[in-house]
Amino acid sequence: MTTTRTAADLRAVTAAELEAIARGAALLGTGGGGDPYVGRLLAEHALGPGGSVPVVPLHELPDDAVVAAVGIIGAPTIGVEKIQGANETIDAIAALNSALPRPVTHLVCTEIGGSNSMVPIVAAARTGLPLVDADGMGRALPELQMLTPGLHGHAATPLGLSDEKGNRLVLHATDNLWAERLARSAAVTMGCSACYAMYPLSGAEARAAYIPGTLSWAYRLGLLMAEARRRHEDVAAVLADELGGAVLFRGKVVDVDRRTEGGFVVGTGRLDGVDGWAGSGFTLRFQNEHLVAERDDEVLVTTPDLVCVLDADVAAPVTTEALRYGMRVS
Amino acid sequence: MTTTRTAADLRAVTAAELEAIARGAALLGTGGGGDPYVGRLLAEHALGPGGSVPVVPLHELPDDAVVAAVGIIGAPTIGVEKIQGANETIDAIAALNSALPRPVTHLVCTEIGGSNSMVPIVAAARTGLPLVDADGMGRALPELQMLTPGLHGHAATPLGLSDEKGNRLVLHATDNLWAERLARSAAVTMGCSACYAMYPLSGAEARAAYIPGTLSWAYRLGLLMAEARRRHEDVAAVLADELGGAVLFRGKVVDVDRRTEGGFVVGTGRLDGVDGWAGSGFTLRFQNEHLVAERDDEVLVTTPDLVCVLDADVAAPVTTEALRYGMRVS
Repeated sequence: MTTTRTAADLRAVTAAELEAIARGAALLGTGGGGDPYVGRLLAEHALGPGGSVPVVPLHELPDDAVVAAVGIIGAPTIGVEKIQGANETIDAIAALNSALPRPVTHLVCTEIGGSNSMVPIVAAARTGLPLVDADGMGRALPELQMLTPGLHGHAATPLGLSDEKGNRLVLHATDNLWAERLARSAAVTMGCSACYAMYPLSGAEARAAYIPGTLSWAYRLGLLMAEARRRHEDVAAVLADELGGAVLFRGKVVDVDRRTEGGFVVGTGRLDGVDGWAGSGFTLRFQNEHLVAERDDEVLVTTPDLVCVLDADVAAPVTTEALRYGMRVS
Repeated sequence: MTTTRTAADLRAVTAAELEAIARGAALLGTGGGGDPYVGRLLAEHALGPGGSVPVVPLHELPDDAVVAAVGIIGAPTIGVEKIQGANETIDAIAALNSALPRPVTHLVCTEIGGSNSMVPIVAAARTGLPLVDADGMGRALPELQMLTPGLHGHAATPLGLSDEKGNRLVLHATDNLWAERLARSAAVTMGCSACYAMYPLSGAEARAAYIPGTLSWAYRLGLLMAEARRRHEDVAAVLADELGGAVLFRGKVVDVDRRTEGGFVVGTGRLDGVDGWAGSGFTLRFQNEHLVAERDDEVLVTTPDLVCVLDADVAAPVTTEALRYGMRVS
């Protein structure tokens, strides 16, 4: 608990911070948002040796900043095979800029959970734009209209979308639900994943609409997990204590029903209990993220609470596309 | 035959020409491109009483013109229920203009076949832009990369796409096949039909890339059909003579297998012969347009030849979405 209280807020991201951010982001991804592992490698490559990306606290954003949220839309199952490049992020920002009176000056995470924590770092390193220490969800999100700037009444469009082949589009939607539908279907056609730059906001609007400090929060959670593992502590219990939650179950994965559908990975995972939970069953229901957790057919937790699954052997978060038969998890 | 040789080329379209153009376009649509009936009503409304749209022969286009092809992409089955409005065409042109250094100065048909013969007339009436007497297919087309400007090496994008709800997008594709895929999937999400403005060409490029005189040709074919029907002549035989074709079959529709799939209407129609063809069977295979005609399991005609189906009772062309059990056709 001390770790997250004492570590200072990030003022820059270098290669040294990436592993902790990725680990914390994977936890906050609650199984969704894709494994940040590949994103971390891309960010390392984009930063280069000695490279760094400046991080601006949300409250320090100037009023006249132009802030865009960047990330990947698609099914995380696809990200396992179709690895994102670095040019898509530049193309998506260029597509958005073509529809704006003034170009984007700052980048922000849509969702701190999962690989979308890494995409803005790659984009910032490639474009030289500073990154805001904030995100629009505080976890991973299933659909773009659910972001906090959307809840604050801001339009997700104009939205720039791009793929690794060089296709680009600029979308103007009548509302954010239509933006989600059109961006999702274009992403499916682009190969089930695409890069976006969206929600162009002024600095003043962004300060009110985003969740402050979540990049630093993911970093501190990542440090905490690494520290607990180094000390051979029970990482799940340490996290439950830190996040004010509880260890709901420990068990072995006995069945995974998973399919890619409409640009999402959806399905169910079933566990048989071990330790104190021997004899009990547990069910995880997911759409990209773990949405519902049931023990012995009783619903214990639903989103927006965080349903986090840790691999018991390596104490690392498990994404919904990586969940597999025989895995021991907490 | 005399009609098509003697009627002068169109220099303007008024409400008086619409019926003949629509009838000729329906014939050249070979079952696809949608019934121009609704399009004709929209064009009549857009022209208004006494209104007219100037028509420019292809060879008179100035070098520095900016020519865009406008029309509807989607499954014609949808057009039966979801009637296009007039604002989509304006929105699609505005979306395209936002990606061009100079705005569009002239409009042209993508395909003279079907309802897409009427959309550019509506767009011209609403925007005040002149219409070019030409199209990019000389018939109806299944996919946008097959247009003659595409065959001349021109890019279909930037492409503006819009729907009746007010959603708009600008697409930049790496090639015209990707433009087709992305525009088609966006059109499906927009409700299975959407309006586009694409293939921005200079006047010099357009003169070389489009098929001249096809708007006037559709008009003359429409006049010929009306004249033949007025004289109680065999319209199918008159048209076969005029177009250098043949009457392949007369029969009754005994089965239609039709489904809307991936933004297309696809299926099969089966006929039993009458008159000289009694005892024979005939099969029409279609994807929006009639693509293959078979008599007694022998393939007689395939696209790009025109497979035209006329309702024997009213001597009017029948679209693939209107083909139904019991209809007598030539």
